[in-house]
Amino acid sequence: MSTQAVNRLHTLSRHIRISPSADIGLIGLAVMGQNLILNMNDHGFVVCAYNRTTSKVDAFLENEAKGTNIVGAHSIEELCAKLKRPRKVMLLVKAGDAVDNFIDQLLPFLEEGDIIIDGGNSHFPDSIRRTAELEKKGILFVGSGVSGGEEGARYGPSLMPGGSNAAWPAIKPIFQAIAAKADDEPCCDWVGETGAGHYVKMVHNGIEYGDMQLICEVYQIMKEGLGLDHDEMAAVFEEWNKGELDSFLIEITRDILKFKDTDGSPLVEKIRDTAGQKGTGKWTAIDSLDRGIPVTLIGEAVYARCLSSLKDERVRASKILDGPKDAKFTGDKKKFLDQLGQALYASKIVSYAQGFMLMRQAAKENNWKLNNAGIALMWRGGCIIRSVFLGKIKDAYTQKPDLENLLFDPFFQEATAKAQESWRAVIANAVLLGIPTPALSTALNFYDGLRHEMLPANLLQAQRDYFGAHTYELLNQPGTWVHTNWTGRGGNVSASTYLA
Amino acid sequence: MSTQAVNRLHTLSRHIRISPSADIGLIGLAVMGQNLILNMNDHGFVVCAYNRTTSKVDAFLENEAKGTNIVGAHSIEELCAKLKRPRKVMLLVKAGDAVDNFIDQLLPFLEEGDIIIDGGNSHFPDSIRRTAELEKKGILFVGSGVSGGEEGARYGPSLMPGGSNAAWPAIKPIFQAIAAKADDEPCCDWVGETGAGHYVKMVHNGIEYGDMQLICEVYQIMKEGLGLDHDEMAAVFEEWNKGELDSFLIEITRDILKFKDTDGSPLVEKIRDTAGQKGTGKWTAIDSLDRGIPVTLIGEAVYARCLSSLKDERVRASKILDGPKDAKFTGDKKKFLDQLGQALYASKIVSYAQGFMLMRQAAKENNWKLNNAGIALMWRGGCIIRSVFLGKIKDAYTQKPDLENLLFDPFFQEATAKAQESWRAVIANAVLLGIPTPALSTALNFYDGLRHEMLPANLLQAQRDYFGAHTYELLNQPGTWVHTNWTGRGGNVSASTYLA
Repeated sequence: MSTQAVNRLHTLSRHIRISPSADIGLIGLAVMGQNLILNMNDHGFVVCAYNRTTSKVDAFLENEAKGTNIVGAHSIEELCAKLKRPRKVMLLVKAGDAVDNFIDQLLPFLEEGDIIIDGGNSHFPDSIRRTAELEKKGILFVGSGVSGGEEGARYGPSLMPGGSNAAWPAIKPIFQAIAAKADDEPCCDWVGETGAGHYVKMVHNGIEYGDMQLICEVYQIMKEGLGLDHDEMAAVFEEWNKGELDSFLIEITRDILKFKDTDGSPLVEKIRDTAGQKGTGKWTAIDSLDRGIPVTLIGEAVYARCLSSLKDERVRASKILDGPKDAKFTGDKKKFLDQLGQALYASKIVSYAQGFMLMRQAAKENNWKLNNAGIALMWRGGCIIRSVFLGKIKDAYTQKPDLENLLFDPFFQEATAKAQESWRAVIANAVLLGIPTPALSTALNFYDGLRHEMLPANLLQAQRDYFGAHTYELLNQPGTWVHTNWTGRGGNVSASTYLA
Repeated sequence: MSTQAVNRLHTLSRHIRISPSADIGLIGLAVMGQNLILNMNDHGFVVCAYNRTTSKVDAFLENEAKGTNIVGAHSIEELCAKLKRPRKVMLLVKAGDAVDNFIDQLLPFLEEGDIIIDGGNSHFPDSIRRTAELEKKGILFVGSGVSGGEEGARYGPSLMPGGSNAAWPAIKPIFQAIAAKADDEPCCDWVGETGAGHYVKMVHNGIEYGDMQLICEVYQIMKEGLGLDHDEMAAVFEEWNKGELDSFLIEITRDILKFKDTDGSPLVEKIRDTAGQKGTGKWTAIDSLDRGIPVTLIGEAVYARCLSSLKDERVRASKILDGPKDAKFTGDKKKFLDQLGQALYASKIVSYAQGFMLMRQAAKENNWKLNNAGIALMWRGGCIIRSVFLGKIKDAYTQKPDLENLLFDPFFQEATAKAQESWRAVIANAVLLGIPTPALSTALNFYDGLRHEMLPANLLQAQRDYFGAHTYELLNQPGTWVHTNWTGRGGNVSASTYLA
């Protein structure tokens, strides 16, 4: 803090009799910010609330925060003056420039060792950059994933903090107190260095895209293929929620399917089928392409949202493109519903296996020490993808922290072995009925690809060598690269020297 | 050019008696560069060859270029001195810094109106940047896609030039002379402004990834599912190459499958099944995610290469993960092979439809005037994806330049309608046999998704509104967004105001 700023702060303190009484400051009074503040207050922490449009501060104090220990600030300066040292300021603002702007506004009023926490959906490279920039100035930075939506924020979110390691002890009591609990353990632990917190949150969101898409496909199969009504479908989800699929998203799907509009019809049928997105699923897909890890399920889930948004084009296509003549399932519905549950479960296992493959690669490239069991625990409760299933993932990584692939864990190996015939039956039926299942299908294709010692990429390499002299590696002599003149024509110049 | 450089050039010209005699200069004597030079020479153009390692210039002149009109240069200065005005210098060097380095080296010896052509696999944003930078200096820039591998470069590539519009008349005679011809028309036309040439080349490469992956999947089904030997498979490709699948990649696949090693066994079986990639397929997939266009087939093709490269993990997985008990097809093989051809054809149509969807979106965002029929013609011959099929695409866009979707064209609508039952049979069988078909499957899923007026994204929007108060749009009142309190708990703050 500059001497000038310190003096101003002291003047201000004397003038309006501010004493530093708040445990943490929070900037941004939209849905997540308000609920996090109320949650912190419930756990005995004094929070100072600030918002750029300061009328929101007053409205909040007079309504939602009435009767609590929450205090307000009408300027950044006042906010910082009200915070105990080391100051902890959490930003819940739109990711991007707004975060940098608030950091710039905060800096004059912060001192060495103070902590800025970004709880928004920031892209991890920004958190890597901000950690480095702020640490140079003696300020600690935390980029924290916050998941659970408004409900989670209010009653216990999943928190995934990473950044300046030195910040963790100071924020740990608050973060672990307000976080969700799973089997009495807080769904919050230190994720790792620099951008690790936001990275893991990004993958979490990607997996969330995948889980949601899988449920949507299953819903479409039930509705269109089996002809179930919404109450029947709700009953299936109710049943599934008692077993291995027990999870928040299955539970809310049940609620949604049951929910009737004022006219008594299912409300969900009145919603336009064009999915929105805020970008984190896309980031995960792009990141996986960049790192060369086949996170196909998230990729397809993102593309499925894109296709859904081309509603007008689909409406026109529906009048032009041909489908199967018979699009109703005629077999044993009860058996098929069991198979559907198995297909959903196995696809989910594949999706999480892909997500952990991606995090392993990112950790390697960024020198992060990621704790896989800890990540599973953080996702176990509080967040959108919370599930019983994540407890099994935690177990797998607790038993074998260096597990190469989640599918190799005996529990998941057995689960997929048990599910695979059902999975195949479901997809084969959907294909014949003309019901799109991009996520369920890509999961099975990944599973079948992974268990193939020999994939057809030998032909692909031959093609590349044929037309581009790219050379190929010998199967029984790894490391030996050969070019064949497949046509007897062409030059003798190998592409391995494609440099001027 | 600086006065100093002009003086040096004049001194040099007098000293070594250089007169500007060459029509074009070419930098980079790897496989593509050498073959393009020989091709230009065949068409009566005098080419001056230069390479950073100048011994390659001498070796080229003494061997491949012996007895031709090709001249050499041992410095950039000498190269520029030997070129007629406006100078045309084509770079065939590794994409990235090497291109910028050579541009920097060239600039002192170029004058206003001279043209630098980048014929490498540059990323289109670099070409957008280079066009702007060079035009500011009075130099014209062309970023040109060059496809066809060494054979194409030598005897007629597909060329996709874009950049400074003013450069086109000067390079057109050379480019259209050396390009492949399809039905007597050159497979080269001006693509569009700034990065349009490299953009279209990128999408071309993405489609190439898709085509290759589709052929690989078909190969695996024939080999593993039907148990065909390599000569039998070659015969199928031979047959396919006489019909609607007639294309370069089908043709070389036939050649590859027939090709025997010295011990008489199929050489392709001795190639390690780990696919390499040079990044352009990945760029296309990432670009499609960024623009929100579901180019799923290329995405899956890129991921399939990633999975193939995880060979060691796959070998271990093959010993752990369970597959179907019976993995051999027991039906009518001949009929199935016909269905397989139909599945391949329909998937290919989808892939090209997706590629053109992407280019349409990119053109809109970049203010390019892309000529779809022209693009189809450029790809019709010379390049890796050349095919009879592209003639049909050219016809479709010639008849209806503003065709919304390739699948809506009557020819392709009928083709997919005819193919769809076969396509479904193939994928259902592969799924039951445990043979991965990520590209064939995603193509059908896209087709089925596109022809669905109603996708299950209504449920997804309900989920997003449930946990994140994201609001949803009413199906019968587009533009009206609503939030429902699905649980009866939670706050009243809508996420649409997620801003501090």
